[in-house]
Amino acid sequence: MTFNVPNMAKLPGAVRDLIVSYHELNSTTIDELHEEPSPLEFMRYVARNRPFVVRKGAESWTARKVWNAKYLVDVMGRQLVNVAVTPHGNADSVIELEDDGLLFVKPYDTEEPFNKVLEKIQEKERQGIDGPGPTRYAQTQNDNLRNEYMPLFSDLPKDIPFARIALEKSPDAINLWLGNSCSITALHKDNYENIYVQVLGEKHFTLLPPIECACVNEQLIPAATYQPREPATPESPRSPSAASDNSMSSSQVRPAMTHDEVLDDLVVCLDEPEENVPFATWDPDVPSQRATPFSQYSRAMRVTLNEGDMLYLPALWYHKVAQSASSEGICCAVNYWYDVEFSGSFWPLCSLARGVGLLTLGRDPRDGEEDDG
Amino acid sequence: MTFNVPNMAKLPGAVRDLIVSYHELNSTTIDELHEEPSPLEFMRYVARNRPFVVRKGAESWTARKVWNAKYLVDVMGRQLVNVAVTPHGNADSVIELEDDGLLFVKPYDTEEPFNKVLEKIQEKERQGIDGPGPTRYAQTQNDNLRNEYMPLFSDLPKDIPFARIALEKSPDAINLWLGNSCSITALHKDNYENIYVQVLGEKHFTLLPPIECACVNEQLIPAATYQPREPATPESPRSPSAASDNSMSSSQVRPAMTHDEVLDDLVVCLDEPEENVPFATWDPDVPSQRATPFSQYSRAMRVTLNEGDMLYLPALWYHKVAQSASSEGICCAVNYWYDVEFSGSFWPLCSLARGVGLLTLGRDPRDGEEDDG
Repeated sequence: MTFNVPNMAKLPGAVRDLIVSYHELNSTTIDELHEEPSPLEFMRYVARNRPFVVRKGAESWTARKVWNAKYLVDVMGRQLVNVAVTPHGNADSVIELEDDGLLFVKPYDTEEPFNKVLEKIQEKERQGIDGPGPTRYAQTQNDNLRNEYMPLFSDLPKDIPFARIALEKSPDAINLWLGNSCSITALHKDNYENIYVQVLGEKHFTLLPPIECACVNEQLIPAATYQPREPATPESPRSPSAASDNSMSSSQVRPAMTHDEVLDDLVVCLDEPEENVPFATWDPDVPSQRATPFSQYSRAMRVTLNEGDMLYLPALWYHKVAQSASSEGICCAVNYWYDVEFSGSFWPLCSLARGVGLLTLGRDPRDGEEDDG
Repeated sequence: MTFNVPNMAKLPGAVRDLIVSYHELNSTTIDELHEEPSPLEFMRYVARNRPFVVRKGAESWTARKVWNAKYLVDVMGRQLVNVAVTPHGNADSVIELEDDGLLFVKPYDTEEPFNKVLEKIQEKERQGIDGPGPTRYAQTQNDNLRNEYMPLFSDLPKDIPFARIALEKSPDAINLWLGNSCSITALHKDNYENIYVQVLGEKHFTLLPPIECACVNEQLIPAATYQPREPATPESPRSPSAASDNSMSSSQVRPAMTHDEVLDDLVVCLDEPEENVPFATWDPDVPSQRATPFSQYSRAMRVTLNEGDMLYLPALWYHKVAQSASSEGICCAVNYWYDVEFSGSFWPLCSLARGVGLLTLGRDPRDGEEDDG
């Protein structure tokens, strides 16, 4: 297909019109309900792809009544659980290198006994992000409440009735999130309709609608993972960087590092084989950094979930999430993910908006995709 | 705003992907229900912007039980009603001039007694489109059932309960449509959620989803209207074209034309002041004519409404409508229009799809709009 393109210079105007007209037609204040919606009321929100919060919508849940630090430890005990460990609380985030290059860095995933994870989360909360030790966040997002946290699942509803009835689906995943105020989840989107319930502590959501894809400066960036430096043992030399510490000769023998010492010394390692992942690089809280010409038209919606609040986070909305800990130094939430509806026009139209936004920014929306023949 | 546009050549691919991926994710066969949906079931269709037909969904309506040619005349009598008159059954359609230019031509709107309109519709149906006389179509679309056809409205429900409850709106307009097989409504779209019920005869819908806007070759074309030639009277000379008929000298006196003679001699007149209107110029039934490079990806959905059937025609779907008359030579339908929802993302995303489609075809989507400063 070849085309004359005399009007192509007007394409940025079409992208800007999308964002500006969306915000003319929609509020940036979230709808606040005070009781659960009916399935029909919920479906109206799904149809418009608009979020709402139900204040105290989960207040009657057993989890709200019985969960606290001691109860969680009593139930989970020393059972091994997955935990994401990062030096700065930045799991799945973009970091800027000294040469201005960007990396998408994932946390170091390890297993620890639940009671230790909880205790370390509390200790880190007391000492703050600048205190010693890494930040832990139990956030596996792999349906963990029906797997490793099964003992806690009996305190929660099996699904969200208004969502199950409206969407005619059972949840694809039900997840527990346990962290503290040191963890921030970077701006990203999910292919799920999301019902998010705050149990302990607070979550601070910054939300951008899917039509703002041209604002968030999606880029293909190399993936990396926090990894421990190779532990020092008589059999294995220290990593090159550590070996350059000339206060100790390489012939000296040091004891192997403990698990905690290993986690205290995480370094960023490029993934092998190398992989580039598409990720939003603009942060609505630092709007002048890595902005696109469209970022100025972004209008973030901000909402804090207090204990017992329930959020409907519609599919494909960008969200950045910060946390405040409870008086016990923990922040605990659960969420129910329902697959997005691929039929109808929403999915293909959002793909168009993304593709056009990227083309307007001089990028190819197909970069990074598998060869589609 | 200025941009580098190295990837702009990939824009047509993004438009093609929109259309192709939509059809990969959606059927071109309409969903057939056999009873009215609940408000929630309806809302699921609205959310996906997908049509359905309820076979015999209106079979229990009083109108279905009592309407026939005699009943309609008994109720409406000689009351004056608006009627659209065209020489070829082409109200609101595109016509091609000898120089390949296009005109958007509207019908001649006049008033006639209802009993005459109905009789003329039947007579034209008997004689066929090539027979003598113009084609009449009562199709004012101005909430006529709550105005000129009020006497018939008591045979119809005041609204469609599942739609009223789901959309939380009363109908913006409720219309009667009375015509015959000589009328065809050209491909167009409306800003309404539409519940369309066939009472007598059949309607044949050809439906294209809103994401096919790049297929339908929307163009800005001059608006025109069928008008009677100036009637010949001693006081007023005949129109230039008629005056060139040299079998009669201009000094001869002829009687003024009757109303029917006037309607037999409609000519296309450009609107004054001149106005260009955006209109779809591609016809999915003549796919090689006025096609765009995207028309090949169009996948029309076709559905015939039989007597008593109810169609949900979602907002912004392109539709072309042909008719078959009942054994009495008439085709009669009613429809309920509910305003489209402008909040949410559907409306701005459809505007983006239209804008990008037009830009890709070398046109400016803002042409023809009021100056927006």
